[in-house]
Amino acid sequence: MSEVGVRPHFRRVALIGIGLIGSSLARVIRRDGLADHIAVSARTQHTLDIATRLGLADSTSLDARKVVEGADLVVLSVPLGAYGSIASVIGSGVKPGAIVTDVGSVKECVIADVGPHLPEGVHLVPGHPVAGTEHSGPEAGFAELFAGRYCILTPPPGTDPTAIETVTALWRQAGMIVETMSAQHHDRVLAITSHLPHLIAYTIVGTATDLEEQLKSEVIRYSAGGFRDFTRIAASDPVMWRDVFLNNRDAVLEMLGRFTEDLAALQRAIRWGEGDGLQEKFTRTREIRRGILEVKQA
Amino acid sequence: MSEVGVRPHFRRVALIGIGLIGSSLARVIRRDGLADHIAVSARTQHTLDIATRLGLADSTSLDARKVVEGADLVVLSVPLGAYGSIASVIGSGVKPGAIVTDVGSVKECVIADVGPHLPEGVHLVPGHPVAGTEHSGPEAGFAELFAGRYCILTPPPGTDPTAIETVTALWRQAGMIVETMSAQHHDRVLAITSHLPHLIAYTIVGTATDLEEQLKSEVIRYSAGGFRDFTRIAASDPVMWRDVFLNNRDAVLEMLGRFTEDLAALQRAIRWGEGDGLQEKFTRTREIRRGILEVKQA
Repeated sequence: MSEVGVRPHFRRVALIGIGLIGSSLARVIRRDGLADHIAVSARTQHTLDIATRLGLADSTSLDARKVVEGADLVVLSVPLGAYGSIASVIGSGVKPGAIVTDVGSVKECVIADVGPHLPEGVHLVPGHPVAGTEHSGPEAGFAELFAGRYCILTPPPGTDPTAIETVTALWRQAGMIVETMSAQHHDRVLAITSHLPHLIAYTIVGTATDLEEQLKSEVIRYSAGGFRDFTRIAASDPVMWRDVFLNNRDAVLEMLGRFTEDLAALQRAIRWGEGDGLQEKFTRTREIRRGILEVKQA
Repeated sequence: MSEVGVRPHFRRVALIGIGLIGSSLARVIRRDGLADHIAVSARTQHTLDIATRLGLADSTSLDARKVVEGADLVVLSVPLGAYGSIASVIGSGVKPGAIVTDVGSVKECVIADVGPHLPEGVHLVPGHPVAGTEHSGPEAGFAELFAGRYCILTPPPGTDPTAIETVTALWRQAGMIVETMSAQHHDRVLAITSHLPHLIAYTIVGTATDLEEQLKSEVIRYSAGGFRDFTRIAASDPVMWRDVFLNNRDAVLEMLGRFTEDLAALQRAIRWGEGDGLQEKFTRTREIRRGILEVKQA
């Protein structure tokens, strides 16, 4: 964290996907002049038009392969389920020496889905900026989204150190604290800090949605009691999150197993009126909050 | 909501308990000059000293019975588990014509625990201002806590309409939107909007607390991904919440049953890779968020 920041510079950055994260990164690149040219690809012309209107793209194409041509940095910011097919389209078009990175919330699958499609001499440095909001699309982005947050890089063993340094410098320039770990470890940590909380939020909001109509309107009205925090999380992008769960299945199922065991124990304590046990549990959880406030992530 | 506000006035308000909610109400009473005298009782002299220092009490006593003598309004702001014993102490000391209200998160138990102790001519108007933070104690309160939030009153059938109007006027003065419903209905609605979310947040934060030490420090570090919203909820007062679960057992267990069924269905969808089902579920939950934003509770 104390290293002197080196401002990276790219001749041509290819952004595949320009949603909340992609467009926020584009704003950082523009703000700090990190690239001579930003080439953007997206799934629809509508999105490309918005990116152009917002001044985030110097050139655009629906054809991702065209966009990566000549790029020295390629950033994938699309739902994880699209990685394999995009990699097969762009793979052989990426020039030797270029860096391919991404912003996905699961990392083992990136190495498996993207790696095999890249030619010799192209550097794959998977990354995960742990930042976001419940909003989606290029208009939801903002350059300050990353400030003060962590970015986790998971380069496979043997990755070119210079490529790792370049991606590190990019995210540091965005204001992030950059850490490196194995993809497997990342996926386990994020399963509990992010994936399981989202799954639970989606579930409880879904449970409320299924209540009889009158009760439902009251759920909305009296949501200030705790529920509204869950609805914010459960308003996150459905396709992105579908792909997170499908691509981090084992770690999510493991953490979910621990959670449901613990929930069953609390349920039993409530049924049997075990007040001391409940109070003890509820007191311990205050500690973790204190830890988070100390590292200033709240 | 469109009625003209009538500013209530009390000669002597007795506040039993002066934590987050009690002290916030005391601040409203002070700010707007709603009482000639505020008498405060609490469990410890230390708390009473703080209340005095903050200018929230004209007189204090560890003896709740002394505090209610001559009061025309008595407000219980203590954990639900203390209601019965406090009611038995103060009950016969409350003067005829006085109003007894409370701020507890469960309401059927108030009628059962407090009602029998009150003499003829004393009006019991249970209330629940649906507002709060994760902080506790008299120093955590602030007069604006209630502004724009809902307050639910659950007077038993046959309650004096003037007494209900007086309590309504008090909470309107604090900036709340006041609604009236049966205690049973209240407890069911709050079980899903508040009690279950708290139970789940306590559980997942507890699950994380039990992880091996190294993983735990990373959970704290990368909490921005969703987890930190849960830690805020799970930092709420342990004794208050213990009593909520013990006193709203049936409704909480019912909602918990629905939730665990829904969670099991999602778990199965993840295990079997049913992407369409996941996406459909995650899309529906966005609707509820929209509803909440429309009624401006977010």
